[in-house]
Amino acid sequence: MNLEAKNNQYLINGKPSAGLSVFDRGLAYGDGVFRTFLVKNGVPHHWELQYQKLTQDCLAMGLACPSNEELLSDIEALFDEGSDAVAKIIVTRGESARGYAVPADIQVNRVVTKSAPPTYPLSNQTQGVKLLLCELKLGLQAKLAGIKHLNRLENVLARMEWSDVNIADGLLLDSNDNVIECTMSNIFARFGSQLITPALDQCGVDGIARKRIIEHAKYLKLDMKIEAMKLDHLMQADEIIICNSLFGAWQVVNFNNKQWPKQDLDTQLRDMLLN
Amino acid sequence: MNLEAKNNQYLINGKPSAGLSVFDRGLAYGDGVFRTFLVKNGVPHHWELQYQKLTQDCLAMGLACPSNEELLSDIEALFDEGSDAVAKIIVTRGESARGYAVPADIQVNRVVTKSAPPTYPLSNQTQGVKLLLCELKLGLQAKLAGIKHLNRLENVLARMEWSDVNIADGLLLDSNDNVIECTMSNIFARFGSQLITPALDQCGVDGIARKRIIEHAKYLKLDMKIEAMKLDHLMQADEIIICNSLFGAWQVVNFNNKQWPKQDLDTQLRDMLLN
Repeated sequence: MNLEAKNNQYLINGKPSAGLSVFDRGLAYGDGVFRTFLVKNGVPHHWELQYQKLTQDCLAMGLACPSNEELLSDIEALFDEGSDAVAKIIVTRGESARGYAVPADIQVNRVVTKSAPPTYPLSNQTQGVKLLLCELKLGLQAKLAGIKHLNRLENVLARMEWSDVNIADGLLLDSNDNVIECTMSNIFARFGSQLITPALDQCGVDGIARKRIIEHAKYLKLDMKIEAMKLDHLMQADEIIICNSLFGAWQVVNFNNKQWPKQDLDTQLRDMLLN
Repeated sequence: MNLEAKNNQYLINGKPSAGLSVFDRGLAYGDGVFRTFLVKNGVPHHWELQYQKLTQDCLAMGLACPSNEELLSDIEALFDEGSDAVAKIIVTRGESARGYAVPADIQVNRVVTKSAPPTYPLSNQTQGVKLLLCELKLGLQAKLAGIKHLNRLENVLARMEWSDVNIADGLLLDSNDNVIECTMSNIFARFGSQLITPALDQCGVDGIARKRIIEHAKYLKLDMKIEAMKLDHLMQADEIIICNSLFGAWQVVNFNNKQWPKQDLDTQLRDMLLN
């Protein structure tokens, strides 16, 4: 490894390639899963958790997960020690003839891409963020709930609901009007010393940042609960936090015609998540 | 055009290509739509209806639909006059940087592929077919209902529920236990002189064969109704028919522990659909 920028922006099955087969089922049906995470100075951040979740999602979808060694080799080949970047791993079921049936001898395709880290206003950290309440409501599908699969049209359509750059993310309810998540983040609400995050057994993505906050709550002397939550309950929270693996955590200070004073739980969680 | 087999199996934006960009949103999010139809002796079957539906689906998703001329040019370049084949058109939102937000200057990618026609047992036509009742239930999402979009994991997972080659398709209920469709086909049920097909306002794909049967029913002196249907109602039908643009129509003679005598509505509909 050297400190020069590497040329390749992606690898397919470990190799430079001109592109993915148009017969890949990731394109045809969204038949696959993915992960997105920081690579800091060439080192994938919280790799064990990312790989564990990838393994779980592959298992849930009946996909053969690429090995830890293959993926770490891809990351080493793509990323530089001298800078931070974002890695995305896509695992698709592979190529097949037309039709939904999966051939017995199909082999997964793995794609690893390198992107620049997202740039967000510093004020998202210092002053908090504004959320939109999305009109789109997530459909219920227990067989896909929690999995970060490639069927993300609901997120795309929800994200198309706003263009105001002052809105950091959009809150999604499900079709039963339960609070679930935001388009690119999970959500937590603090009520006194209780921290609640929505149950994701019918829809939503069970992200790594969410998992880490759930495990970390006890160190902040917060009583952690995972349960169904309605919007009117969320609105009564003392603090609302959104999180993902790239930005860490932000406090929501403006949502659904209500404002909250900036507090410091987001800073504590962000320090924990990003370091 | 000559009668020799053409070499290219696909075109991307009208050109031979080594593959699709791994940054295409069709792969990343299933952010696109598709069509599948017969090409008979080089001529796309019922092209006007296929292109009309593609245009409608693109509009519903906020995609710029490729022109009629571009797509017909792709089909002419790929398909031979001397044989029948299956065309698939995929229109994705195009390539973008990581993240759900759609850049203002994004340009759709169009992919046209050529495949061999599916081979089904002749007995599907002469004796009828067996359906499985799938365990998976379709989630509700009015904003995507009817559209043939690339988020098809529910179909994939449902199709994974059986490997018995004697099962022709799997029937899907929605999460409210309404009969909706099968994994690769739409469904009709005849009760005396009444023909009913499920409403698709909350989920399901509104296919071309379904549309044509709805319009054709009056010529068969059948009173056509599009409405919600429960499983116990379906089970009382005099005849159940499934349909798509590739196989036309088959009668269901074995489903959910009940058998039906083979009749001839499927033959009439198949003749209408495939000719």
